[in-house]
Amino acid sequence: MNVYDRLKELHVALPVATPPVAAFVPTVQAGNLCFVSGHIAKRDGKSWAGQLGVNMSTEEGQRAARTIAIDLLGTLHHELGDLERVQRIVKLFCLVNSGPAFTEQHLVANGASELLQEVFGRAGSHARSAVGVAQLPLGACVEIELVVEIR
Amino acid sequence: MNVYDRLKELHVALPVATPPVAAFVPTVQAGNLCFVSGHIAKRDGKSWAGQLGVNMSTEEGQRAARTIAIDLLGTLHHELGDLERVQRIVKLFCLVNSGPAFTEQHLVANGASELLQEVFGRAGSHARSAVGVAQLPLGACVEIELVVEIR
Amino acid sequence: MNVYDRLKELHVALPVATPPVAAFVPTVQAGNLCFVSGHIAKRDGKSWAGQLGVNMSTEEGQRAARTIAIDLLGTLHHELGDLERVQRIVKLFCLVNSGPAFTEQHLVANGASELLQEVFGRAGSHARSAVGVAQLPLGACVEIELVVEIR
Repeated sequence: MNVYDRLKELHVALPVATPPVAAFVPTVQAGNLCFVSGHIAKRDGKSWAGQLGVNMSTEEGQRAARTIAIDLLGTLHHELGDLERVQRIVKLFCLVNSGPAFTEQHLVANGASELLQEVFGRAGSHARSAVGVAQLPLGACVEIELVVEIR
Repeated sequence: MNVYDRLKELHVALPVATPPVAAFVPTVQAGNLCFVSGHIAKRDGKSWAGQLGVNMSTEEGQRAARTIAIDLLGTLHHELGDLERVQRIVKLFCLVNSGPAFTEQHLVANGASELLQEVFGRAGSHARSAVGVAQLPLGACVEIELVVEIR
Repeated sequence: MNVYDRLKELHVALPVATPPVAAFVPTVQAGNLCFVSGHIAKRDGKSWAGQLGVNMSTEEGQRAARTIAIDLLGTLHHELGDLERVQRIVKLFCLVNSGPAFTEQHLVANGASELLQEVFGRAGSHARSAVGVAQLPLGACVEIELVVEIR
């Protein structure tokens, strides 16, 4: 089954890629590696603001992370022309806007990691770090960046 | 116009590269990728201490980020021998020392991103993440690391 | 002297690699680069919880970082089959769980950097960033990820 069939099966509609809000580009490819800029969580087209452990639960954070993963796929589809060119999701870095006592960043990140594995199968399993940060651009609850191997 | 002419036009003087303050090296090249260590903001040769949203404005943060970009170019010039060897600025990661309510990390990062684009043109446009961290080494207001493609 | 002899000389016993606690894999190799997932500090097999500048000293943080470096070597040994395949430690990223006034993240990171240099010599010297984060998964005091060049 190809990637687009799997997206359909998962009822995932790719968003139209939106240009970055600042002086950078969505992806840069160097050799076979594609570096994808940090994407913040969005809701209704705007920053999904919030802080885990303060005004958001782990479950909400997971949903936000899943949403970012879908946006990252939208960006990759737009930049690569075809998601079948993804050889491997290499590395995911998940930054969670965290109150002082919130220690479930790894569970929040699972919202994105699991979607990538559902979509790409074995090629979607990746190295990862998840951390709790003091704040994020536009007050977003989660930000995720990727390194992807391209064929 | 070559990179050094553009630096002259922008009235940017490259600093003398200074050795890291701890047990690491300024850059490591693997294949065509050069990984540049995180550089903290400096003023008068010392850590430029401060926290955005507490005792520094977005505009000051942008100036600090621009200063780091110049220091990163100084390091690359020293390590590569010639900035013309830069094929592409691939990825910039900007860590902003942020008070709890500061959400303009992306605008701070623009101070570095815009300088790189002025100096390298299209080759200076890069993937990027910007985040707000709780603290940085020596209390620095901003820290930036790079991945650069070398020819 | 080979890597395993040096480990013996340093009285370092590699741990048995433990599977990640969430939906990701310990390492992914793309071309010659191996991306190693963030490893949190552990003590007695559990998260080594703490926050620098609040309930942990710089010296304790250095010991935690050294412990993580050993765990990272355990993971690399398990994943690569032979640590002699390490061509170069390319990049280390050290995330330190930091109270608001703690500014010695670079000294904490040295605990890991110095071990890598002791074990690999020149091939162990790496590019690095060290930052202070608001929190980490399971309340860990330090988290470290690596990029390693493989032969």
